Amino acid sequence: MELKECINFLLSVSQNKVFKHFSKLLEEYDLTPAQYGVLNCLWSEGELSPKQIGGLMHLEASTVSGILDKMQKAGFIERSVDPENRRNILVATTQKSMAIQRDVEAATDGLNRTVLQDMSDSDKAVLTKLLDTIIQADFV
Amino acid sequence: MELKECINFLLSVSQNKVFKHFSKLLEEYDLTPAQYGVLNCLWSEGELSPKQIGGLMHLEASTVSGILDKMQKAGFIERSVDPENRRNILVATTQKSMAIQRDVEAATDGLNRTVLQDMSDSDKAVLTKLLDTIIQADFV
Repeated sequence: MELKECINFLLSVSQNKVFKHFSKLLEEYDLTPAQYGVLNCLWSEGELSPKQIGGLMHLEASTVSGILDKMQKAGFIERSVDPENRRNILVATTQKSMAIQRDVEAATDGLNRTVLQDMSDSDKAVLTKLLDTIIQADFV
Repeated sequence: MELKECINFLLSVSQNKVFKHFSKLLEEYDLTPAQYGVLNCLWSEGELSPKQIGGLMHLEASTVSGILDKMQKAGFIERSVDPENRRNILVATTQKSMAIQRDVEAATDGLNRTVLQDMSDSDKAVLTKLLDTIIQADFV
């Protein structure tokens, strides 16, 4: 097989390029792509447990925990005990992260426009569907 | 934008899943996915300079240099001075890496089959083309 037909190679090279570009776009807000992912979940869903965030982001609990620690230290999120279940932690946005929501969402729209600039709308939809097929596929 | 429409999210989650699976498949040969990439280039092209390998793999020189150091220590490659240009280094496979070529190529074919199991042949071709479009797109 040629290297450029290997699915790991194709995903690694494209992901690395897009991740670097997105990281640069988010630098202005002192956010990383993973931290943006957390904020996106909270902006859509309101308060969430770390476990729910991990489920939405396809990340393991220990990874989520590390991301949340840094975000709390930087003032982007707050963690509190769930009053309805004291064994549960709830994560919420702060004034600081609400203040950047509109700009960060515009930056993310810009990322998609830049990365997918050479694709038709139907190509974009197909790419999204096929990447999601991999994400949902039955292998680990 | 929903997180699952963000191209960085889609690529990161799918790449992470595929990379982990491929890493496990290659463990048997004491190879990493990046090291496989180097061997694939050498198996296809014969001797190459580190710069040529970086070009084929879309990696920076310092990254390639680190990968080659580990591969040389493990006996997978040899580096020699190019007799036609003594400022140039040539990288070549060894007996050890030639001995695993067939099995490693079979493992890589298996990776593509597993990851793309839920796609038609035309979907697979479209995915390959669209990921390559991102790799070739004019942004950094």
